[in-house]
Amino acid sequence: MSQNEKETFKAGTNPLDVTYADGVGELVVKPNPDDPRLTEKVPGIDQDGSPVIASVTVERPLTLFLNGREIVTMMTICDFPEYLAVGYLVNQNMLRPDDVVTAVEFDEDLEVVVVRTERETDFEEKLKKKTLTSGCAQGTVFGDVMEKFERVTLARGAMIKTSWLYTLMKKINTAPSLYLEAGAIHGCVLCQGDRPLLYMEDVGRHNAVDKIAGFMFLHGWKGHDKIFYTTGRLTSEMVIKTVQMEIPILVSRSGFTAWGVELAKQVGLTLIGRARGKRFIALAGQERIEFDAAHDEAADEPIELRRKGSR
Amino acid sequence: MSQNEKETFKAGTNPLDVTYADGVGELVVKPNPDDPRLTEKVPGIDQDGSPVIASVTVERPLTLFLNGREIVTMMTICDFPEYLAVGYLVNQNMLRPDDVVTAVEFDEDLEVVVVRTERETDFEEKLKKKTLTSGCAQGTVFGDVMEKFERVTLARGAMIKTSWLYTLMKKINTAPSLYLEAGAIHGCVLCQGDRPLLYMEDVGRHNAVDKIAGFMFLHGWKGHDKIFYTTGRLTSEMVIKTVQMEIPILVSRSGFTAWGVELAKQVGLTLIGRARGKRFIALAGQERIEFDAAHDEAADEPIELRRKGSR
Repeated sequence: MSQNEKETFKAGTNPLDVTYADGVGELVVKPNPDDPRLTEKVPGIDQDGSPVIASVTVERPLTLFLNGREIVTMMTICDFPEYLAVGYLVNQNMLRPDDVVTAVEFDEDLEVVVVRTERETDFEEKLKKKTLTSGCAQGTVFGDVMEKFERVTLARGAMIKTSWLYTLMKKINTAPSLYLEAGAIHGCVLCQGDRPLLYMEDVGRHNAVDKIAGFMFLHGWKGHDKIFYTTGRLTSEMVIKTVQMEIPILVSRSGFTAWGVELAKQVGLTLIGRARGKRFIALAGQERIEFDAAHDEAADEPIELRRKGSR
Repeated sequence: MSQNEKETFKAGTNPLDVTYADGVGELVVKPNPDDPRLTEKVPGIDQDGSPVIASVTVERPLTLFLNGREIVTMMTICDFPEYLAVGYLVNQNMLRPDDVVTAVEFDEDLEVVVVRTERETDFEEKLKKKTLTSGCAQGTVFGDVMEKFERVTLARGAMIKTSWLYTLMKKINTAPSLYLEAGAIHGCVLCQGDRPLLYMEDVGRHNAVDKIAGFMFLHGWKGHDKIFYTTGRLTSEMVIKTVQMEIPILVSRSGFTAWGVELAKQVGLTLIGRARGKRFIALAGQERIEFDAAHDEAADEPIELRRKGSR
C-alpha cells in the first residue's frame, strides 16, 4: 500500500490491508469528522427558542462473532469495526498473543463482524460470569483478565518527558476530531515520544481503547515504548487495559479512582492525571517522568479547547 | 423518622427506613464528600515534581443477588448499595412496578447486597443475552427493556421553565459533591420545578441513575412531574432509563448521540443538552420548554465551576 493510499485510510477499510510507515510526522490513524456516516445534522432550538442545527454523533449496533460463536453486541460509531472486534477480543483475553487471525469480516448491512482464528475457541463458561467495571459501572472483565494482569512486566526503561507531554496534549487537543465537531464522544491516543500515532474516538471509551488494541494486534505493534492518552477517567479498567497492551505510561485529562491508582502502583504503571495546560498530577510510577520543561513553557489552555474531564 | 434524622441520612442506612418530607427546600439526598469511606488521600507529585496529596474516589465491588440468584457484580462508591441494587433491577426490568420488595440486605464485609421479593423471579434465559450499550459501550440492555420503552406514555402537560433550568444548574454546580472534592465521578439529579431533590454520584453514570431509580421505587415516587439532570452524555441508554422512570424531561451539560435523539423523539421526551451557563440546545420535545428567562439573567459559568461535559 502506497503512502498516498495510507493517507486516505477510511472507515471500513479492511485492517489487514493497512500498513504504516514509521518516521512520518502525521497521525497514522486519525478521526475523520468529515465522514458523513459518523455524524448527523439534527434540527432543534437554542436558549432563545431560535432554530439551530446541531451535529450529533451516530452510534450503531455491531454484533461480534468469534468463529461462529456470538460474543456480544456493542454500540459504536463503527468507523473501524474490524479493529474494534479484534481489540475487544484481545482485551477480554479471548484472543491470545500467539493467535493467528485468519479473517475479519464486516457486513455493514447485517451490522455483524466475524473474527476467525486458526485455533478453535470456546468461551461458553467464560461468558457466564461477568464483572461490571467502574468507568461506566457496566463494563465487563473476566476472571482471567486479572490473572494475566498479574503476570505482565512493564518496561522499566520507558520514560516520558514533560516537554513531550505538553506537545502531545497540544497536538491532540487541536487535531480535527468528532469531539470538536459533535461532542459526546471519548478519545484515546496511542503515542510514542512527543508524537501521537493512533487517535481513535468512540461513543464509549472502551471502544476507543479496544480499537487501538485491535490495530496494535493486527499490525504487530508493541506497547513497551508507547504512551497512552485518554480523555476518560483513570479507572481500574483503563489501567487494566493499558497494562494488557503492555504500555508503561497512561495519561489523562481526567481524574483518578482509588482502585485505578492501586492497580497502577501494583504493576508499576506510570499514572498521570488531571493533565490540563501546564498542570498534571502523577500518582504512580513517577520515576519514569523527566521534568525537562520549565512549567511556564506550556501555556494555559485556551477556553475554546477546554473539554470534558477537566478534573 | 424525624426531620433531624433525615438530615443526617448516611451511606448504608437501610433505605426502607427512609422517609422524606415534601416542601422542604433542601436536597433529600445529597453527596457526602466528607464521608471518609468515599475518598482516599493518595500521595503523588505535580508538574514541578513537588509532592502533593490528591483526593481520589474509592470504588468497591458489590455483588447483587435477587432472591438467591447472583445477577451481577458492579463497581460502585457504595454509598447507597440498597438503592443501587433495587434501581439496577428496576431499570433492567427484573423488578416490575407491582413487585413487593420484602427486604434489601447489604453485607459490607461480603460486599453483597440481596434483594428479596414476594414474587418468584427467574432470569436464567434473560441473563444469557445482553446488548452492550453506548454510553460506555459496555452497558447492557435486555430485549424486553425496549418492549417496555415502546409502551410508556410520558406526561404531556409537564413543562420546564428556562428560569428553573438556570436555577437548577446553579444549585447543582455549587452543591458540595464528590466531584468537587475528588473528580472522576458522574452525577445525576432528580428535580421538581426549580428544586433538586436527589443528587446521586457514582464512578459510573449507570449507578448514579440506578440509585435514583431505586430510591423512587422504594419510596413510591413518580416521575411524571420530575426533571432529570445528568452530567453525562445523552445517549440511548440514558434516554431509555429516563423514560423507564416515566420522567418527561432530561437535561445534560453534555452532548447528544443520534440514537439518543431519535429515541427521545419517538417517545416524546424533552431532551436538553449542552446546558452551560445561559446556553443550551433542545433536540426533542421542545414544546415542554417555556422561555420565561431573559437569557442575560443567567450569567456565564465561572471558570472554577466548569466541569466535564462541556460539549
